[in-house]
Amino acid sequence: MKYLGVDSGGTKTAVGLINEENKLVEKRSLATDVKGGVAEIAKNAARLIDEIFENQGLTYSDIEYVGVGVPGSVDNDKGLVLYANNLDFLNAPLRDEMAKYIPLPIYLENDANCAALGEYFAFKEKEDVDDFFMVTLGTGVGSGSIINGKLFKGFNNAAPEGGHMNLVPGGRLCTCGNKGCWEMYSSGTGLTMTAREIAEENLDSLMWELAGGKIENIDGRTPFEAASKGDKAAKEVLDKFFYHLGVALVSVVNLFQPEIITIGGGVSEQGDILIDKAQEAINNGSYTKTSRVTRVVKAELGNEAGIYGAAFLRR
Amino acid sequence: MKYLGVDSGGTKTAVGLINEENKLVEKRSLATDVKGGVAEIAKNAARLIDEIFENQGLTYSDIEYVGVGVPGSVDNDKGLVLYANNLDFLNAPLRDEMAKYIPLPIYLENDANCAALGEYFAFKEKEDVDDFFMVTLGTGVGSGSIINGKLFKGFNNAAPEGGHMNLVPGGRLCTCGNKGCWEMYSSGTGLTMTAREIAEENLDSLMWELAGGKIENIDGRTPFEAASKGDKAAKEVLDKFFYHLGVALVSVVNLFQPEIITIGGGVSEQGDILIDKAQEAINNGSYTKTSRVTRVVKAELGNEAGIYGAAFLRR
Repeated sequence: MKYLGVDSGGTKTAVGLINEENKLVEKRSLATDVKGGVAEIAKNAARLIDEIFENQGLTYSDIEYVGVGVPGSVDNDKGLVLYANNLDFLNAPLRDEMAKYIPLPIYLENDANCAALGEYFAFKEKEDVDDFFMVTLGTGVGSGSIINGKLFKGFNNAAPEGGHMNLVPGGRLCTCGNKGCWEMYSSGTGLTMTAREIAEENLDSLMWELAGGKIENIDGRTPFEAASKGDKAAKEVLDKFFYHLGVALVSVVNLFQPEIITIGGGVSEQGDILIDKAQEAINNGSYTKTSRVTRVVKAELGNEAGIYGAAFLRR
Repeated sequence: MKYLGVDSGGTKTAVGLINEENKLVEKRSLATDVKGGVAEIAKNAARLIDEIFENQGLTYSDIEYVGVGVPGSVDNDKGLVLYANNLDFLNAPLRDEMAKYIPLPIYLENDANCAALGEYFAFKEKEDVDDFFMVTLGTGVGSGSIINGKLFKGFNNAAPEGGHMNLVPGGRLCTCGNKGCWEMYSSGTGLTMTAREIAEENLDSLMWELAGGKIENIDGRTPFEAASKGDKAAKEVLDKFFYHLGVALVSVVNLFQPEIITIGGGVSEQGDILIDKAQEAINNGSYTKTSRVTRVVKAELGNEAGIYGAAFLRR
């Protein structure tokens, strides 16, 4: 049997077909019609599924179930999206709407949890581990955790919200209302803030030249590029960034003691230095230095982790 | 059948007999002979068991198993204490030593995990929950977590080390070598530090009078007593203490989303204000405000939580 994974994001709705060898065979996506609400999302997902079926010569009888990742907290028992800020959902009956088109079991899950599950199964093809933690450094900082081989959800079904672990008490104001959340320092958004702050203190930094003199052109890539050319201020940006990332990861290791931490998201595309710095921080800072040490690896599925994970929800 | 729980601490070794109604029937303890190592601890535990047997008219045939809590990380499969700082143990064969005296299955577990398990089962007598987190505010900050009804250990068998979650980057130097760990702010030790710091800035504070003018007499109780009499500096101490406790607990809630957080340890004996302040911080600060909120309750088993939990290891 084959599986369908749906990644219902704030900007795109994507559907993927996973075959018996656990590989993504085909993926299709559409812009998410946020205003259309849950009804439009269900309709569009069904349309993408029909397109894939037509192209692959399949029907619903070839599929075991449909898994759906949603950027928010879900109640799979009731088939509801309890809350999804980006989609403007509050107690939205996503499963009932999808069931109008899809004659199969439909499972709902938080999208960061789906991504963690996708990366977990990908990693397990190489090595068998039970305790696995994923961190996504994107617009925010997302996280998901596998404990004893099972997806960990907490009693609100969206744990762990790693991005909202406090990192700097009284620090940068986060969208959640608190000050100093991890995602204000280690996301692309946080890195951009740090780069702009330090650029403003260093008007001779190469970052300005790379940004055409405009602060709004300085983003998370700018300090990496400038530092690679020897710019001192850019190196200061990266030092700060790696320091905060290291402190946060040591906390994650001390709390969850995962065997593997995998790091994904746009910021992780900056190469091995990020993985190396993260590993160094954990080697030096984790509490149980005397026994086995958590290893840090780069995530491997990119944007498709969520689709894989949704398709693997009952694997 | 009855159960035996052993709490093998750095200062005391205690043994308790738990009956069929899950109640502690008798408890005996001895000073721990740290220099004698694992051999003496095993011998003393067996001696305490013999005393209880004699008093209760029991033999090993009335007992199902013996659970042992150790202040460190253990490998129960191998029967080893991997590392216990307070007991000076490194890969110590505790089970083999105990098996010389005890003809029953012997299970080893981290002591903070045992305490969490003890409190969990006590709480479950009133209300059925699956996700439970215990914080002990004692000399340090200890923690333990029950996830989906099972003790959570991480791949190093001592997770979660909540006391070593970072709270103030670059803050107070912790015994673990890092700066700004949670336990440097919310333990009795941390509270004492804060009280002394603020007393030194406020020579007219009532804390000095209560301490007979000697800074070494100011401890974690002093600011509570002085604040209850209206002392402003003492109130400042408590405000700082509750602020840090709140920030840390919000991180715990966002990461673990437990249904219940129970707070124990000496500092929690200061009354309802601590529980109330913790609940307030979580109500205001946790990420999933829109759905169910974690409740904070006071731990109920005191020093005996570890014995109960050890006896319940295979319950």
